[in-house]
Amino acid sequence: MHFKNRKINFSKMATKPSIPKGTRDFSPSEVLKRQYIISKIKAQFERFGFQPIETPSFENSDTLMGKYGEEGDRLIFKILDSGDYLSKIDAATLPTMNAKQLTPKISEKALRYDLTVPFARYVVQHQNDIEFPFKRYQIQPVWRADRPQKGRFREFFQCDADVVGSNSLWQEVELIQLYDQVFADLGLHGVTIKMNNRKILSGIAEVIGASEKLIDFTVALDKLDKIGEEGVKKEMLEKGIEPKSLDKVQPLFAFSGNFNEKVAQLSSLLQESEIGMKGIDELTFIGNQIAALGLSAATLELDVTLARGLNYYTGAIFEVAAPKTVSMGSIGGGGRYDDLTGIFGLKNVGGVGISFGLDRIYLVLDELQLFPETVTSSVVALFVNYGETEALYAMKAIKALRAKGIKVDLYPDKVKVGKQFMYADKRQIPYVVIVGESEMTHNQYALKNLITGDQVLVDLETLIQYLEKAS
Amino acid sequence: MHFKNRKINFSKMATKPSIPKGTRDFSPSEVLKRQYIISKIKAQFERFGFQPIETPSFENSDTLMGKYGEEGDRLIFKILDSGDYLSKIDAATLPTMNAKQLTPKISEKALRYDLTVPFARYVVQHQNDIEFPFKRYQIQPVWRADRPQKGRFREFFQCDADVVGSNSLWQEVELIQLYDQVFADLGLHGVTIKMNNRKILSGIAEVIGASEKLIDFTVALDKLDKIGEEGVKKEMLEKGIEPKSLDKVQPLFAFSGNFNEKVAQLSSLLQESEIGMKGIDELTFIGNQIAALGLSAATLELDVTLARGLNYYTGAIFEVAAPKTVSMGSIGGGGRYDDLTGIFGLKNVGGVGISFGLDRIYLVLDELQLFPETVTSSVVALFVNYGETEALYAMKAIKALRAKGIKVDLYPDKVKVGKQFMYADKRQIPYVVIVGESEMTHNQYALKNLITGDQVLVDLETLIQYLEKAS
Repeated sequence: MHFKNRKINFSKMATKPSIPKGTRDFSPSEVLKRQYIISKIKAQFERFGFQPIETPSFENSDTLMGKYGEEGDRLIFKILDSGDYLSKIDAATLPTMNAKQLTPKISEKALRYDLTVPFARYVVQHQNDIEFPFKRYQIQPVWRADRPQKGRFREFFQCDADVVGSNSLWQEVELIQLYDQVFADLGLHGVTIKMNNRKILSGIAEVIGASEKLIDFTVALDKLDKIGEEGVKKEMLEKGIEPKSLDKVQPLFAFSGNFNEKVAQLSSLLQESEIGMKGIDELTFIGNQIAALGLSAATLELDVTLARGLNYYTGAIFEVAAPKTVSMGSIGGGGRYDDLTGIFGLKNVGGVGISFGLDRIYLVLDELQLFPETVTSSVVALFVNYGETEALYAMKAIKALRAKGIKVDLYPDKVKVGKQFMYADKRQIPYVVIVGESEMTHNQYALKNLITGDQVLVDLETLIQYLEKAS
Repeated sequence: MHFKNRKINFSKMATKPSIPKGTRDFSPSEVLKRQYIISKIKAQFERFGFQPIETPSFENSDTLMGKYGEEGDRLIFKILDSGDYLSKIDAATLPTMNAKQLTPKISEKALRYDLTVPFARYVVQHQNDIEFPFKRYQIQPVWRADRPQKGRFREFFQCDADVVGSNSLWQEVELIQLYDQVFADLGLHGVTIKMNNRKILSGIAEVIGASEKLIDFTVALDKLDKIGEEGVKKEMLEKGIEPKSLDKVQPLFAFSGNFNEKVAQLSSLLQESEIGMKGIDELTFIGNQIAALGLSAATLELDVTLARGLNYYTGAIFEVAAPKTVSMGSIGGGGRYDDLTGIFGLKNVGGVGISFGLDRIYLVLDELQLFPETVTSSVVALFVNYGETEALYAMKAIKALRAKGIKVDLYPDKVKVGKQFMYADKRQIPYVVIVGESEMTHNQYALKNLITGDQVLVDLETLIQYLEKAS
């Protein structure tokens, strides 16, 4: 209310307050936990040389529409033009229109649907100010008019890091390490970084003579976990894949060993496919470097059933699975793409990128109780208010404490002490500082630990030391 | 692109990319500078015991409409309902409708216009989970369909801190200190915190017998700086304020001295007004505490011409002026209000709050060159890429450096060294690390300072020490 000439009419009638479905209010402890995750991700993004950009919440509709397929077009939130938007439309034709026809005439802006199309637009628009390879990260909300359900929201944050303008596979190596470091920092061990390569999938389809059935084939293969080998084969046959093709693919079901061992087995299957062997080369390079560099919290796993983003990924495909002890979908994903900016007229800008699923990481950390207790501790000590003179004496100490970075507060009103203690208790403030006439006379402070009940009488310097340690 | 099942159609025709007017892309250095300001504000908010909340970007239209006056209703961005929104409307009546009538039928959500109404809605909705007094801060973007102009955007951030549920004047004292500490932290000295009180303005109007002309009176008085004493008096007479009233108000034009001295002068003018003297009591209390506690970067000034937010402020009124050496409007503002949540049916929740003007603070710090150089430094050293073996050797060092929190990067491709140096130069990376065969043999790294041209040959431990110091 306090800025930019706000005029609020507080006298309006009461309305029962609620928020739109699929959106969320975040309470202080929720914001602090989210900020904790974001700060860890951001710190690693920056260590790895990624630089932040931010783009507007809404883009021109032209920029977004037609980029995410028909479903995307439907799920993009459109913003109504301001002013008399109907004046541009012939009143006679209006009743003949359906919503799909009318929308482009009354809405020229839309809320962003992801961070990638805005990033592509950014790269093209600012191409002359950018040094390639350009490593950018972006942590901002996106909006989708999807049906809300458990874990799916209409407003959620994406945390993306992408490198564009280089084909070097060292970047896949770096992104795997980046995932590993973030999860190590969050104390989340036992994460699996699943990796595949679009060229491997193309190679398999080629080898079995079913190149035109790549999607059917991968969709079936993707169900291996759920329906088993026989189920997958049955589905493939139903989709028209030849029995003799299935024989060739048999080794896929018997994969075992670590990343490099699996790559070796896959390699013998793909000998006859040029594109497949290109994929093997890429996986081998990445596997070797990761083996030499090591991982701390995660395991790298080759997963030939991984087939996300086949519409745009051209090389590496990543997906991150939470530790097996929690039941949760993927907590991250990414891949390499040949042409990010072609849609906006700039050719040959390929790249690779990954994303962190903030909401799901939150749920995983919460379930495994991996949030440090200090994350949500707001104020370490509350000063009791005994009236003007005592409060001013307290405020001087409070000022000195805050100058040391310690979070402390004065109860604002002179009310019954019991009420003030109860407030400290309910806000989970661990210490109360009592300053009455006697303490003032002796230049002291009574510091009470609300958990143990212990109370000590200390001078300002000792008070600072105590609370600094307790923060 | 990497998450939540995104399907991007990269084959669409080229479009010339741009963003909606009044919105902005932020480049890496701009984001880093904005993050710097936000981190300083946030750190002080938390030291002062404020807790963060976040609310959705869009609210139900009911929540926002009618709260900011007619102009606000017009400037609120409305979101088009998804699906076939026209099916709810009788086709026959459609051509008779104007935009104002149609909008509520096809749009049930709107982007937030400020952070205060959503906060009021939050307090009412979550009243049973909140301990009062509730100290919250909120740093999020807001949107207004205002005509864009220099320094006025359609998307901008607000940084608000409010305490609700207590009438204690200690909070005004705290908020003044909070302003002072944030500006001290930003190195921005010479800031003026202007303060007035709604009760003082009511008192003046009462004393001169022009209570019903309060707005005309304050609007004229507000122009004192620009049109001088005679101009103000002329305007007041034109607005129908009696000449004898003007005589009574004469002392206002001769105010001088520090905060407490001005309060004393004002006090003699307001002797006969009960509400005016209540304002004097409040100013006296606040002035005394601030005098006892001291300020570091700012000066507190009584400004009886300050009349922002008269529609809702009931006590203190704040406005913060940048140092006089820069020409800039207010960089912050706030005040005390009696009834925040009445619009949503919860009575008697008054409070006081302040806001920081992020965009303007940015411009002021930029003009005065107060951003520390380190804020925008992304990567401290670039490792040159001589090929696979050398790059892996480099990556091991890079991993060790990043583990120490040092931002370093490997040039991703094996290209001419000159090109790699040029890249480091353009990205303003101060150091380059060269690892060739000879360095590898001796377990060493050649570290070149691109600014001085100096080069040293060091082992890993020394390299870490060097770059840690340079970060």
